[in-house]
Amino acid sequence: MSDIQAKGWALATRPVGMPKESDFGFVDTVASAPAEGEIQVRNSWMSVDPYMRGRMIDRESYVPPFEIGKLMQGGAVGRVTASGHPDFKEGDLVSSMNGWREAWTAKPEASMAQKLPETGLPESAFLGVAGMPGLTAYAGILRIAELKEGDTVFVSGAAGAVGSTVVQIAKIKNCTVIGSAGGPDKCAFVKSLGADHVIDYREASGWEGLVAALKAAAPSGIDVYFDNVGGDHLTAAIECARPFARMALCGMISKYNDTELTPGPHNVMMIVGKQLKLRGFIVSSHADLQGEFLKDMAEWIPAGKMKFQETVMEGIEQAPAAFMGLFKGANTGKMLVKLT
Amino acid sequence: MSDIQAKGWALATRPVGMPKESDFGFVDTVASAPAEGEIQVRNSWMSVDPYMRGRMIDRESYVPPFEIGKLMQGGAVGRVTASGHPDFKEGDLVSSMNGWREAWTAKPEASMAQKLPETGLPESAFLGVAGMPGLTAYAGILRIAELKEGDTVFVSGAAGAVGSTVVQIAKIKNCTVIGSAGGPDKCAFVKSLGADHVIDYREASGWEGLVAALKAAAPSGIDVYFDNVGGDHLTAAIECARPFARMALCGMISKYNDTELTPGPHNVMMIVGKQLKLRGFIVSSHADLQGEFLKDMAEWIPAGKMKFQETVMEGIEQAPAAFMGLFKGANTGKMLVKLT
Repeated sequence: MSDIQAKGWALATRPVGMPKESDFGFVDTVASAPAEGEIQVRNSWMSVDPYMRGRMIDRESYVPPFEIGKLMQGGAVGRVTASGHPDFKEGDLVSSMNGWREAWTAKPEASMAQKLPETGLPESAFLGVAGMPGLTAYAGILRIAELKEGDTVFVSGAAGAVGSTVVQIAKIKNCTVIGSAGGPDKCAFVKSLGADHVIDYREASGWEGLVAALKAAAPSGIDVYFDNVGGDHLTAAIECARPFARMALCGMISKYNDTELTPGPHNVMMIVGKQLKLRGFIVSSHADLQGEFLKDMAEWIPAGKMKFQETVMEGIEQAPAAFMGLFKGANTGKMLVKLT
Repeated sequence: MSDIQAKGWALATRPVGMPKESDFGFVDTVASAPAEGEIQVRNSWMSVDPYMRGRMIDRESYVPPFEIGKLMQGGAVGRVTASGHPDFKEGDLVSSMNGWREAWTAKPEASMAQKLPETGLPESAFLGVAGMPGLTAYAGILRIAELKEGDTVFVSGAAGAVGSTVVQIAKIKNCTVIGSAGGPDKCAFVKSLGADHVIDYREASGWEGLVAALKAAAPSGIDVYFDNVGGDHLTAAIECARPFARMALCGMISKYNDTELTPGPHNVMMIVGKQLKLRGFIVSSHADLQGEFLKDMAEWIPAGKMKFQETVMEGIEQAPAAFMGLFKGANTGKMLVKLT
């Protein structure tokens, strides 16, 4: 048992608009030999996720903001290198919220650390399809959007970690699926997942363009919208919604770097006449679905019904670039940083 | 059995923006002696309601648009003057959708005509607290907004036919109620209904002013919002919503006469982080609650728990003025036209 010298990232300044490299501070950290009740872990993968942008803002929210000058947090998986905790032993695979660093020592409970099962899945899957983004998709489309067989489903951000999982769950449930993504490569990926129609939003001009594309794909409208994007996508979904359509509002990445108040959908009044249901959600409120989710994934992934793709950047140095890439659409599937 | 010569109102032209007198055409109509299966009715009251503005627009909606040059429709109550239908006899009190005219002859089924019970209530109550606006309030606050005892409830348009009923149902269910209305007289009326706090929106400057007033009334936020108004009120409600708040979107009277696309709430992204549920609804989808609703009203009204006020204009000539008055806030409680 010995200390591990490691590198990590702190928030240097709160970003204004699109985050930039200088908002992040590269710092030295030590994962000390674990005391009683602690574990020492070397992270093999860390996650960057759009929601982290919200934690960079100093405001009251469902998770507290990152503190200036302190290491940031986020999903990570790694192996126990030394343990002072009876439930963990050297070599155990562990997920935690101690990302943005190469190694750490802490009490498992203080880091939301969990021992992961040894499965046929690659370790990184626990940060994506079998992890938080996967559960987000699962809870959002099945519980929040109340998916029914035969629904016509529109998914924005359909090439992302959450969206690509939503597309496939909806196909497994025999729905017609329209996915939107940016650029031909991502659209091809969405199509390869089984989506019936794919909209390249970069080819569509504003909300009217998205409406035209949606009407072409689903002339009688949509029953469900899974929103990862917000803005014009949400406006178009409301415009094309059938009566009693349900919308799961998961995230609005098009808005996260706004520096001014930008208008919401001009057609919000249609929510009344069409009797729509819009519901926002956060994955942590649906942790009770975890067991069911992992059981389904354990069936779907080996059966080839649930594919996943990763965009990987190598080395802790790359973590801010990976994060910033999320807002430029640099990722297809889950964006990850490989640490060992 | 003889014909009745009557007056009525047709839509002359589709209004642009705020409706004006010349959009309406005053026409002669005849309620002929009823054929077999028909009833002849002299209306004693007719209703004007904000939703009718939507029917003046030529578009696909949950009810078909009014036709140019034809008599308009709307809620009315009256007495059968002659009957060719076995279930109706002379003198029966009847509600129907054959408003905007003094008398009519038709098959009951074709006019949504229903025989009303003889109660202690005035006839006009069946167009308000014991009619469509009452059921709208009942279904919206209890079913759509999922009201729970102890909720903090914000109601806009709280002096209107629907809003004033919502305020009182929420008080009956032991909630804290904040109502908004325009001007001191209406605010006094809302207060007299038992509202804990009243906001005069004319004194509040934009959505920020409403937020300030809401925060003063409910420092820890609101659990439920019942929206009759839209616009700044909806923005303020989202801003002040507690996590998991529910919003019943019933109408957005501030928007009905817009001639341009106007922006929606700038803070729509808060729906995600606060995990809000917004649900639009139309009363006709909740007709199954009618029995329960009338049973509760029959208890609440005599017990003094459910007060109602009416703003009455006299004579069929006044019907357009009564309708236009809705958008100027001319009514406290239900706006009605007395016909006999």
